[in-house]
Amino acid sequence: MHLILGGARSGKSRFAEDRINHAGGGTYIATGRAWDTEMANRIELHKSTRGKIWQTIEEPLDLCAALSSCNNRDGAKPIMVDCLTLWLTNLMLEDRDIDAEFGRLCDFLPALDVPVLLVSNEVGFGIVPENAMARVFRDHAGRLHQRIAALADQVTLVVAGIPMSVK
Amino acid sequence: MHLILGGARSGKSRFAEDRINHAGGGTYIATGRAWDTEMANRIELHKSTRGKIWQTIEEPLDLCAALSSCNNRDGAKPIMVDCLTLWLTNLMLEDRDIDAEFGRLCDFLPALDVPVLLVSNEVGFGIVPENAMARVFRDHAGRLHQRIAALADQVTLVVAGIPMSVK
Amino acid sequence: MHLILGGARSGKSRFAEDRINHAGGGTYIATGRAWDTEMANRIELHKSTRGKIWQTIEEPLDLCAALSSCNNRDGAKPIMVDCLTLWLTNLMLEDRDIDAEFGRLCDFLPALDVPVLLVSNEVGFGIVPENAMARVFRDHAGRLHQRIAALADQVTLVVAGIPMSVK
Repeated sequence: MHLILGGARSGKSRFAEDRINHAGGGTYIATGRAWDTEMANRIELHKSTRGKIWQTIEEPLDLCAALSSCNNRDGAKPIMVDCLTLWLTNLMLEDRDIDAEFGRLCDFLPALDVPVLLVSNEVGFGIVPENAMARVFRDHAGRLHQRIAALADQVTLVVAGIPMSVK
Repeated sequence: MHLILGGARSGKSRFAEDRINHAGGGTYIATGRAWDTEMANRIELHKSTRGKIWQTIEEPLDLCAALSSCNNRDGAKPIMVDCLTLWLTNLMLEDRDIDAEFGRLCDFLPALDVPVLLVSNEVGFGIVPENAMARVFRDHAGRLHQRIAALADQVTLVVAGIPMSVK
Repeated sequence: MHLILGGARSGKSRFAEDRINHAGGGTYIATGRAWDTEMANRIELHKSTRGKIWQTIEEPLDLCAALSSCNNRDGAKPIMVDCLTLWLTNLMLEDRDIDAEFGRLCDFLPALDVPVLLVSNEVGFGIVPENAMARVFRDHAGRLHQRIAALADQVTLVVAGIPMSVK
């Protein structure tokens, strides 16, 4: 399990994609929802840059089900989840129990028998946001990253497209 | 002297606490003020996770006095200051002379004869804030971190709970 | 070519200046425009801390022309560009074709026959800004950093005045 953190436009998804391309392809679990044109364009751009050696699953909420559907299949092709922060956004918009969802994911991940690369935005290095929802979001994101990082074999921080090894 | 930087919910306080727990406990200097319920809950949560091997001093403004009271006492038990950014917030709210306060702290720290771990939020990696006070705050925070880091024996950046060595 | 990233008040410019001071001076290309008093003060502060071993060129938009004017001159004295994010700000305010400008710079840089240190703000590690222009800005900045980092011999992230090697 590999947690890949990075800022906006840091090349974190590209880094994960490159690793899976070198492994001959895999499964891309897209958590993003096209709730506006800006986002729709980003999703399309991401799709168009991936090749046919990828299978894509779109799953905004039930990440464990999406991961589970990849288990014991396809000769252990690696999975890329892009990204945890969009998944968190969706959970919050649906008013889910965030800690319960995090617990479910963290209980499930060690049982996966294929390599998984989890991509997420590091969002905690700015000024405290004035927006209360944004404060809650970055607190959740920080806690999730800590939990996943504790379980992960590798943690990478991508800066300007270049990986820095964290763990 | 060890400066421990991290983003929001990065595990920076936990990292410092763990180190002092392994050393058999120490003194926790809390700079936070419970000026709203959110903050009060955070302070209580932090307190409840610390054990009885800790002594707690609450000091929002006069950090040198709080540190000084620990000097030559308790068999050199380590001190944790949590955190410098809340101290800076309090200084700004009280309209203190920030550079003078920074100078006083930086003059005092090398004279401490016990190990001190200074925890602080790295807040400078976001977009320039629209709020002028927030811009002043992050400028002050950045300058303080530079001054402390120049004096420190170790500087650590905590990312997703994992320490990255900076110095 | 050396890309130097850092947050606000991280000491990134100081780090670049120190390196060029040790090399006996060089050319400082200032991209900042004094569009308000706060900025004017920053520019003056920066100027006053540099010595006479520096030549200063102020160029808010045509970075390639400024760099070109340093080529094959002054016995290969190093150049410092401070900073790419202010240059990007100016390009956006002038409504230039950002990708074309990035392409022009990235085509030009490898042809420079003197060492160049490019300083820039890492702005992508915060919460998604509510301001749409700020979102566009940090997307552009992230893409520019990736392109420059791919070309650069060295990439450094400055944290609290201390350099962390990225590449």
